[in-house]
Amino acid sequence: MSATALAEKLARPTLRCIECGNVQDLYRERKFRCVCGGLFEVVHNHENLSLLRQFLESQFQRRAAGFIESPPGRSGVWRFYELIMPEMRSDEMITLGEGIVPIVRAGPHISRWVGGDLDLWLILEGQGPTGSFKDFGGAVMMSVAKKAGVSAVACASTGDTSAMTAAYSAVANFPCVVLLPQGKYTAVQLTQAVAYGARVIDIPGTFDDCMRVMSDLVEHHGVYPANSLNPSRIEGHQATVFLIAQAFNWILPEWFAVPVGNGSNSSSIGKGMRLLLEHGFVQKGARILGCQSEAANPLAASWQKIRDIPNEQKLSCWRNVYRRRIDLGETVATAARIGDPVSREKVMREIVASNGAVTQADEGSIVHATQLSARDGIMVCPQTGIALAGLREAVARNVVKKGERVVVVSTATGLKFPEAYGVNANAIEKAADVSTKTVAKMLGL
Amino acid sequence: MSATALAEKLARPTLRCIECGNVQDLYRERKFRCVCGGLFEVVHNHENLSLLRQFLESQFQRRAAGFIESPPGRSGVWRFYELIMPEMRSDEMITLGEGIVPIVRAGPHISRWVGGDLDLWLILEGQGPTGSFKDFGGAVMMSVAKKAGVSAVACASTGDTSAMTAAYSAVANFPCVVLLPQGKYTAVQLTQAVAYGARVIDIPGTFDDCMRVMSDLVEHHGVYPANSLNPSRIEGHQATVFLIAQAFNWILPEWFAVPVGNGSNSSSIGKGMRLLLEHGFVQKGARILGCQSEAANPLAASWQKIRDIPNEQKLSCWRNVYRRRIDLGETVATAARIGDPVSREKVMREIVASNGAVTQADEGSIVHATQLSARDGIMVCPQTGIALAGLREAVARNVVKKGERVVVVSTATGLKFPEAYGVNANAIEKAADVSTKTVAKMLGL
Repeated sequence: MSATALAEKLARPTLRCIECGNVQDLYRERKFRCVCGGLFEVVHNHENLSLLRQFLESQFQRRAAGFIESPPGRSGVWRFYELIMPEMRSDEMITLGEGIVPIVRAGPHISRWVGGDLDLWLILEGQGPTGSFKDFGGAVMMSVAKKAGVSAVACASTGDTSAMTAAYSAVANFPCVVLLPQGKYTAVQLTQAVAYGARVIDIPGTFDDCMRVMSDLVEHHGVYPANSLNPSRIEGHQATVFLIAQAFNWILPEWFAVPVGNGSNSSSIGKGMRLLLEHGFVQKGARILGCQSEAANPLAASWQKIRDIPNEQKLSCWRNVYRRRIDLGETVATAARIGDPVSREKVMREIVASNGAVTQADEGSIVHATQLSARDGIMVCPQTGIALAGLREAVARNVVKKGERVVVVSTATGLKFPEAYGVNANAIEKAADVSTKTVAKMLGL
Repeated sequence: MSATALAEKLARPTLRCIECGNVQDLYRERKFRCVCGGLFEVVHNHENLSLLRQFLESQFQRRAAGFIESPPGRSGVWRFYELIMPEMRSDEMITLGEGIVPIVRAGPHISRWVGGDLDLWLILEGQGPTGSFKDFGGAVMMSVAKKAGVSAVACASTGDTSAMTAAYSAVANFPCVVLLPQGKYTAVQLTQAVAYGARVIDIPGTFDDCMRVMSDLVEHHGVYPANSLNPSRIEGHQATVFLIAQAFNWILPEWFAVPVGNGSNSSSIGKGMRLLLEHGFVQKGARILGCQSEAANPLAASWQKIRDIPNEQKLSCWRNVYRRRIDLGETVATAARIGDPVSREKVMREIVASNGAVTQADEGSIVHATQLSARDGIMVCPQTGIALAGLREAVARNVVKKGERVVVVSTATGLKFPEAYGVNANAIEKAADVSTKTVAKMLGL
């Protein structure tokens, strides 16, 4: 074996089961569930990372300032490729410019409502290619899929995942199919997937039927699954932490507040933080505040039973008390309406490891938080509303303390969830005539 | 007068009429039309800019890489404040993180269709706070309005301008009113303005009635107009050029291709380029390709009559042949459906000065370009479709030459214009049953 070949073999990332330690080849695995039932995570050879730290920080800075002719210079995810997927070559990186998103100060309306005089920020991950944070993971997943030589991609989703999968399949030049349960979708939700060129198939059954058909397509027809189990997505989502660390000069905030649906955000933030800590990029981690809606709160409900248990015993206790939730309530935050999060084990590990917490918010607060944020000029999705309302709960319970710096992960743009704003024709005032006098009077001028 | 006061007076920007040279105070003017009928432009004291060039370039780089605690570090517009509005203090800058937008390579579908083997890029200005390029101008306009001490803001618009005005009024804490002609708007268009907290008033008349009422409110009630005449907006839109220059290491492309509605893009790109050239930031300007739809082509129609006239006589000839268009056609690119662009004089000056051109595209091509771009994973608005289709025309006529680098300014996200994609229930395929066999057969697997 030549030195180059050896170096490549050493650098090659693998999959490792988080339960039993079983190892698989990242580029050959398709099912993304270990024989023991555990989840996989991607493991890289990061041996020299600590030595390269200063050099890498200057590289990250250089790429952020442009030099956009190669993907690391024009993607806020690939900017950090040495951390995310070190062996990926520049010409293998699939990108739509994901991760070039604003990090903004929260406005006065939402800050006052959340309380606690926080140093409150939002990373607006919805201001990206397909309008949601899913793009962070999509760029990495599709690059891995391309390198793995897959022939087609499938997902079962009515929302952000289908848009992401369709868009990045278009870039990677994969045929893409989106499976949907009969009647469980709106015209708006379909526009993106269809516009990006995916085939959308309506299955006369339930969401579980779609998942079963997809599993069969993966197992017997070589189709690549773009679902939440796919651990390559987590690798890309780590960029949330890296972007925040870079923006705050390699000092992490006290807290990340994130909505928890299937759990890719919390898992990836935890994984990314551990990497930064291990190699000296940051000196102190942030705590993760996982936020759920009362309508879909399996993690928050189980957290309530263990929150006073010492940290070292929390995880094993949690496994005993956790119950998936079957009777989901109705919520405007449909993207997080999940009764049994696939990444729950990863989520809880990371939250406990970060000395974090899980909180929940009622439907009224979620809608209020979403609409209130717009009064500050920031139109977020209702899942962001869960994080804001959950943060408010944590402040009220003194879990998040006065004056702490908190970054809320805003997962999608409000433009994708107009119904959360409840705007209708009644919002418009009618002038009785075309005179300025009439309008001035209406305005109290 | 103290040295500080003198420095401040010297640094203070003014308004100058581009026709007669008449000077007004930027912070006192409200009507934004000179007594002679000419347009104003903002004039800054840029005396020391050439000396500061290298220092500023390193500042721009540093800000792009984070250090986000002050607005120049978290806005892609204020990053360049020394070029845009040098006397604005950091604590006076209103921002929503505008200008943090991807610059991406065009994909293979659209590149092949445009032709000419171009080095083709898009700056996706729609991936910002309110989903359109208007945010670039809004940040600067509202900061000026705040500094000017205005008490309320108004606009007459059904689309991107009303969203921008409402959002930035929310940040500046101004009461905001949006005037709309009866029935000439859709529910989707209103969601943003209402969500941001603007009052939306339906006037039982035409768009001209709305404009008249607005002029009266400005003249007699101290209301600040957020319309296209407002030259502060142009200052912010210059960031398009600065972002591109920075990204390409201070070498401009051969062409900017822009859709022309009222003309703020072309005007600002021209103004920004002249500034960069004058002070040595770039050695060579780009040429501006202004693109219009056949449905609303007053500038393209007049350009056809003067395009073979020598450059130094073009502008005066153009003034003779220009006719506003009254009988506008129907087009999916509603935001550029304008028969008499308010900034036409500025547009034509800049296009002629840049040795540029004006082109037009038919409705079929516009729709095709918009939909084709999505097949590359980039979902743009139909106004971007005008620029892409117009560029194709220019390539076909050999105005834009083989292999040239072209940056297309994408003015809004396709999420705001779903109707341009014509997706309906027919796009969904129905599986006859829930078996994998059926789906695999449909997919040809």
